[in-house]
Amino acid sequence: MSDPMSTVEGVQWLRTDGREGDIVLSSRVRLARNIAGLPFLTRATIDDRRHVMRLVRKHSRAAEIGEAMEWFDLESASRSEREILVERHLISRQHAKGDEPRALTVSMPEEQLAVMVNEEDHLRIQLIRSGLALTDAWDQINRFDDQLESRVGYAFHPRMGYLTACPTNVGTGVRVSVMLHLPGLKLTGEIDKARRAAKAMSLAVRGFYGEGSEAAGDLYQISNQTTLGKSEEQILEEFERSIIPDVIRFERQARETLLDRRRPMLEDRVQRALGALLYARLLNADEAMQLLSQVRLGVLLGVIEGVDLRTIAELQLLTQPAHLQRVVGETLDQAQRRRARADFVPPRPGG
Amino acid sequence: MSDPMSTVEGVQWLRTDGREGDIVLSSRVRLARNIAGLPFLTRATIDDRRHVMRLVRKHSRAAEIGEAMEWFDLESASRSEREILVERHLISRQHAKGDEPRALTVSMPEEQLAVMVNEEDHLRIQLIRSGLALTDAWDQINRFDDQLESRVGYAFHPRMGYLTACPTNVGTGVRVSVMLHLPGLKLTGEIDKARRAAKAMSLAVRGFYGEGSEAAGDLYQISNQTTLGKSEEQILEEFERSIIPDVIRFERQARETLLDRRRPMLEDRVQRALGALLYARLLNADEAMQLLSQVRLGVLLGVIEGVDLRTIAELQLLTQPAHLQRVVGETLDQAQRRRARADFVPPRPGG
Repeated sequence: MSDPMSTVEGVQWLRTDGREGDIVLSSRVRLARNIAGLPFLTRATIDDRRHVMRLVRKHSRAAEIGEAMEWFDLESASRSEREILVERHLISRQHAKGDEPRALTVSMPEEQLAVMVNEEDHLRIQLIRSGLALTDAWDQINRFDDQLESRVGYAFHPRMGYLTACPTNVGTGVRVSVMLHLPGLKLTGEIDKARRAAKAMSLAVRGFYGEGSEAAGDLYQISNQTTLGKSEEQILEEFERSIIPDVIRFERQARETLLDRRRPMLEDRVQRALGALLYARLLNADEAMQLLSQVRLGVLLGVIEGVDLRTIAELQLLTQPAHLQRVVGETLDQAQRRRARADFVPPRPGG
Repeated sequence: MSDPMSTVEGVQWLRTDGREGDIVLSSRVRLARNIAGLPFLTRATIDDRRHVMRLVRKHSRAAEIGEAMEWFDLESASRSEREILVERHLISRQHAKGDEPRALTVSMPEEQLAVMVNEEDHLRIQLIRSGLALTDAWDQINRFDDQLESRVGYAFHPRMGYLTACPTNVGTGVRVSVMLHLPGLKLTGEIDKARRAAKAMSLAVRGFYGEGSEAAGDLYQISNQTTLGKSEEQILEEFERSIIPDVIRFERQARETLLDRRRPMLEDRVQRALGALLYARLLNADEAMQLLSQVRLGVLLGVIEGVDLRTIAELQLLTQPAHLQRVVGETLDQAQRRRARADFVPPRPGG
């Protein structure tokens, strides 16, 4: 496997100039697709899986998306290489762990388009962009999807829609999700109310690293749960025009409340977070995420100066275990990583 | 009341060059005395109390101790003035709170000798010095005590010794105590073992501010509990040659263990403490004590550079509520103090 993952510079979703970028880190559209005429993965043989991989490799490369598609055969990838891909949000943990023929193909260097091959469905296609950009993401993924469909043919039922391994994906097979930074709601204690409201609307709320991950760094991924019975346009419209703007408004209000009424507490929290990042000699990944989150809030509210948002975004990724080891060029155990992570965050002023 | 308490520069026990000064902050000898022929305080009238005060004021001034004796009438002192005296370890909380005629006289500017008048006994005489210096303290307080006794006459029983309000003080009336900084034993988790050993030896272990106060800042005051049946020399000898050297040895071992085997954890703790002191925007008194304690350990073990021990010692006193308000020259509520305290600790590098 080549190593195009040694840098994070090109990654589109790490940009900080996206729409509503002070709150929305990234927008993602994901499609679940299966190739017509081949068995679903629950019944697929090793040969069927390899067949899927050959088809996808060939035809995804041919699709015109404006960027080169890099291919990663996950069977032959090392554990650390697979972990890097998880940390970059290019594959799921499940896809990293499997031991059957499976792959990832991803557009380089921006990593906007990624296709997991032989995960739960033959194809899990995702398009991820910085800021609130679901419509753009949808347009881009739709073009790729159409081109690929015209080449390989998808399992489709006239009344049900696209057929998928899990019934929750049947229909449009679309999942949209938005990664939000909600430190204001966390500090004002309103985050649980927001979570309950989201669940009441059948939305899933997860952390930075998907299902089961805690919301480290006050990062919340909100996504739709079902795709049946709604058109892609309805799902997208609802997200981009109503649900996400509501959350953004709540978070903005929370931040204003903090500035207006609890400024001393706010300043204390964010400055202490900066101090801890600069002075800690041991840091675990979750704490680093949390401190970076608070520093990010401080920068956005003008309480911290001299730190830029891009640096924070990159550190949130580069302080993850696999990236950290890539950065220092060594395999490290957990204790060594805590040390290396503390060394890696910006050196203290004058130090 | 004049304000000789606006500075801490002269205070002898804040010096950092005392014997075993890396662990022993200060040594204190205290005598409980009552004037012969006057009723004990439980039965004393207001006039009796005033009589005690006149006698002590007159004769303590006449005693030759090499420093001027300053007189503080606590009835007329403001609450903040009394709090200042408590924070400087010159009077007890009980003495600060009383509402009957009572006073303090203290040698200035070093504040080594202090006499509480009409606390629990007519006289509570203390001598406090930096480092491990019980013998010196004993010699000094003894000279003063002899001179005062020759002038006012003490209640004394040929077989029982000096008579005191509380039976635990009858006999020599001597209490010796040593203020120790034990962050090593705290970090290695051995402090509770040390506390239990001290209690088994009938020693009292208290915090920086005496009975009932938690050991903020890893500062432990060890003192004898009973004075009956032992001579002053025995009590002193036991403390200075055996008990305290044992504790010092344990603490040194703990610090060496931290340096040798847990250096990353040690560095992390003390550097984070420094970071928090520099970056916090709100600080309560206990946290300030704790952070200063850890920074002190870091300085002593060579893990932190550029901070001097004297600054730390002064900050431990000046960040106390009454001193802090004296420093900023304003009466502040608790929230305002947290802000002012964070402002007061050294400004961040380059800030």
